[in-house]
Amino acid sequence: MQETEYDRDEAHEHAHEDLQECVEECVNCHAVCTMTMQHCLAVGGTHTEINLVGILLDCAEMCQTSANFMLRGSPYHVVTCAACAEVCRACAEACRSVEGDEQLDHCAEVCTACAESCDRMASMGSEE
Amino acid sequence: MQETEYDRDEAHEHAHEDLQECVEECVNCHAVCTMTMQHCLAVGGTHTEINLVGILLDCAEMCQTSANFMLRGSPYHVVTCAACAEVCRACAEACRSVEGDEQLDHCAEVCTACAESCDRMASMGSEE
Amino acid sequence: MQETEYDRDEAHEHAHEDLQECVEECVNCHAVCTMTMQHCLAVGGTHTEINLVGILLDCAEMCQTSANFMLRGSPYHVVTCAACAEVCRACAEACRSVEGDEQLDHCAEVCTACAESCDRMASMGSEE
Amino acid sequence: MQETEYDRDEAHEHAHEDLQECVEECVNCHAVCTMTMQHCLAVGGTHTEINLVGILLDCAEMCQTSANFMLRGSPYHVVTCAACAEVCRACAEACRSVEGDEQLDHCAEVCTACAESCDRMASMGSEE
Repeated sequence: MQETEYDRDEAHEHAHEDLQECVEECVNCHAVCTMTMQHCLAVGGTHTEINLVGILLDCAEMCQTSANFMLRGSPYHVVTCAACAEVCRACAEACRSVEGDEQLDHCAEVCTACAESCDRMASMGSEE
Repeated sequence: MQETEYDRDEAHEHAHEDLQECVEECVNCHAVCTMTMQHCLAVGGTHTEINLVGILLDCAEMCQTSANFMLRGSPYHVVTCAACAEVCRACAEACRSVEGDEQLDHCAEVCTACAESCDRMASMGSEE
Repeated sequence: MQETEYDRDEAHEHAHEDLQECVEECVNCHAVCTMTMQHCLAVGGTHTEINLVGILLDCAEMCQTSANFMLRGSPYHVVTCAACAEVCRACAEACRSVEGDEQLDHCAEVCTACAESCDRMASMGSEE
Repeated sequence: MQETEYDRDEAHEHAHEDLQECVEECVNCHAVCTMTMQHCLAVGGTHTEINLVGILLDCAEMCQTSANFMLRGSPYHVVTCAACAEVCRACAEACRSVEGDEQLDHCAEVCTACAESCDRMASMGSEE
């Protein structure tokens, strides 16, 4: 992604790098949750339990929205990142509650990483 | 929704009414497909079959996108309405393939009505 | 929208009505913000100021996400409704900051009503 | 992204690689269009012209929807990819119509590449 034109001091540069990283975490988490949801439907049985599929859909959508706020440079990304961190943590927990499924284990890790990144953005406050 | 400011001749007025109606059909179809997907997960068993849940998610998302193009007054709503009509018809068929479920029967009707409305918009061509 | 099958006691019924109302407020606020954004681009000048168009896009997207969480019956709608209320209030303020524009006045009212409805849902906590 | 479990013959493998590539093109095009839209609002003047901002929003949304259909493994991605290709081409043209802006030049290139990738997916037909 192309850099914007104005100069940045070092502090701003750090904030910008964190923002870029958080966009990538959210975009990746959205993709992994969507594919994991699809995987659960394909496996069937307890994998199609409403709570698991539901939270995967929730997490995918909230990550998408959170990424879009950051891509637009919205100062309200702190609000969406805080909400996203909460949903990601719930999704990681739901994924870990099913044992012996590599895709779900992978999804839990991705959600946990995304939650941590979103927490950092939320705690920084508005910085655009 | 508030009227925009410029005068309209009768033909344009008709087109505008059709557009409003199609937005409402798409918004409604999005909501019904989303709730029906949720209903299928709650019922479980054959209702969580990947093709049924998958097409309900597809239809909900395409209706949302199509409604958004029309709300923005985009001339490319003809493209999204054509795609939306196709996805709605597939969803109606999937809903009808399961017998004895009122929610799915209702969803099939809503999808069919939305497909017809989208077809009309798509055949009108660009009219913004 | 068709009722789901199980019986509800009165308290649950009230919660359900509030949920339905909040879905409608969010769906309506999404539509009005999207059309108002389009209106601002059409008017041009100070109406295309980045903060105004940006918050209208933010509010439209967060309302859409919040409505979708409720349509899916997600217990995490309390998280998205809280975030949505905050974004709606910011959007109402931005709309009111421009004087003499009926569409923006209308949008401010819709955003304020949606914020209040979302606040009620958020304060109820999880009730699915 | 983790591989799914079943074996694939070579033809299927090729189709799968094309699908992965198209998801990446759509996700990237969504991000670039969103940031370019933001850039146009920041620059102001002719950059906030309704047609340019509008098509950037259209392209961003259609790319997002198209990517989501592919991530879900939906057979209807051929429908959304065909629609996406058309919207991407229109966006590339709109970006190229403004001279002397590197961000818009970059966006035009990304949209063109995404249109070509979507065209390939659409012409392959359903391959679920």
